[in-house]
Amino acid sequence: MKLAVIGVGLIGGSFALALKKAGKVSHVIGVGRSRANLEQARSRRIIDAMAPEVAVAAREADVVLVAAPVAQFPQIFSELRDCTALITDAGSTKRDVIAAARAALGKRIAQFVPGHPIAGAEQSGAAAASAELFRDRRVVLTPLPENAPAAVQKVEELWQACGARVARLDADEHDSVLAAVSHLPHLLAYALVHEVASRGNAEQLFSYAAGGFRDFTRIASSHPEMWRDICVANRNRLLAELARYQAKLAELAPLIERGDGAALERLFGAARDARNQWLKSSS
Amino acid sequence: MKLAVIGVGLIGGSFALALKKAGKVSHVIGVGRSRANLEQARSRRIIDAMAPEVAVAAREADVVLVAAPVAQFPQIFSELRDCTALITDAGSTKRDVIAAARAALGKRIAQFVPGHPIAGAEQSGAAAASAELFRDRRVVLTPLPENAPAAVQKVEELWQACGARVARLDADEHDSVLAAVSHLPHLLAYALVHEVASRGNAEQLFSYAAGGFRDFTRIASSHPEMWRDICVANRNRLLAELARYQAKLAELAPLIERGDGAALERLFGAARDARNQWLKSSS
Repeated sequence: MKLAVIGVGLIGGSFALALKKAGKVSHVIGVGRSRANLEQARSRRIIDAMAPEVAVAAREADVVLVAAPVAQFPQIFSELRDCTALITDAGSTKRDVIAAARAALGKRIAQFVPGHPIAGAEQSGAAAASAELFRDRRVVLTPLPENAPAAVQKVEELWQACGARVARLDADEHDSVLAAVSHLPHLLAYALVHEVASRGNAEQLFSYAAGGFRDFTRIASSHPEMWRDICVANRNRLLAELARYQAKLAELAPLIERGDGAALERLFGAARDARNQWLKSSS
Repeated sequence: MKLAVIGVGLIGGSFALALKKAGKVSHVIGVGRSRANLEQARSRRIIDAMAPEVAVAAREADVVLVAAPVAQFPQIFSELRDCTALITDAGSTKRDVIAAARAALGKRIAQFVPGHPIAGAEQSGAAAASAELFRDRRVVLTPLPENAPAAVQKVEELWQACGARVARLDADEHDSVLAAVSHLPHLLAYALVHEVASRGNAEQLFSYAAGGFRDFTRIASSHPEMWRDICVANRNRLLAELARYQAKLAELAPLIERGDGAALERLFGAARDARNQWLKSSS
């Protein structure tokens, strides 16, 4: 099987490596904006060839994975309009990606099976790719009514070959769920670091930051362009989540102000229990 | 040297273990509310004896470390009013601890050198204690005008023997700095987990939460009582930090609403750069 990867970064590169390791893919063609990154992908044998254009890569491929920041999808899909291969993607948002695919692909939309591997990292680029990135991670597919069952099945099997646990969701539901447990936390972490960094005594503040701060803000080292695109693409859901969170903080402030230790302890305890329960059930 | 540890949890237990390992302490007396925890501390040889009361433990000790949640400090200091040993503490807030010490110790206040090891973890209790917990971690001392230089020096040497890097700060400054880089992040993490857990579809939301969410919320598994006390003790500084953060979120919302990708990318990029710079300088 020949695979074309549009955007050979952490996700696209890891997909190629995992499928090669699983013996599912014999040849990978990479397309990307950065020549240096593609060269690195080739030197790491993530890709076997590079193509100058999306359409050229797709022509030779059986499967195309689009793994670029989501704002680039409309352009990429327009270059895939004559593509006869099975197309899937790794975009972190699904409603906007599907809308872009419908607009560009027309009646070829049945060839596109939308997907999202929930396996980010704050590293990016082909240098960070790993055949093990998706091992035991969730991948969500949000199939379209037009997709043939066999096409969805095929994409599911590829992700399973990467070691992933595949689930199916409605695209709306996907975007709501991810806004709550991924997009909002990224925004909150970026906001905290930006706030601290903008202080006159930022250097002193950072010098007393410890492991808790480091883990809390790990996702603030994520790819700014990728997260810019996600925030814009999923803005309605993200704004709804942000508003809920702001309401929660507005509830907390008076508890602190009046020193209501009992209420704070209840809330902290409930949060700890919920988190520990989640860790237990997900391990 | 004989050490009394009031509150043999993660911090108190690790201090005892580290000083024993360094050969600085020959005998440790533990006091605590939980008999089971003290038994565990004894079976792990963190303590050599347990005392039923703070005053009894202090009578036999050369140095007393108070390492309980900070709301217990007024009572503990009142039991130390006749103590002749050097007293220090591990409280995460310093102004309230110093006020409690002044109120209870009177003219013995010179014996109390306030301190704060910045080395938490979401585990708690003697079971989690480790001789290596403070290795390369910051410990802040906030000495009092009444402290003899030799007393401050002595406490500094003990923490250095634990492998810690000791700094000195004004108590006010300590409480401001820690509100920004520790107390606020804990509050934010608790708030997010509580918000997600309170949804009708909480189980579904958690099931799609991944590594980013796990790290962002790690500190929401921290000890609820300890953090209740910190939030109440440092409420003014924490509220000021919370208000700044709420203002930052209120600035972000319209950027998302109008899809201002350029502004979002600038903000995310600045945050990432600041965080990566911090990681580089602190490694």
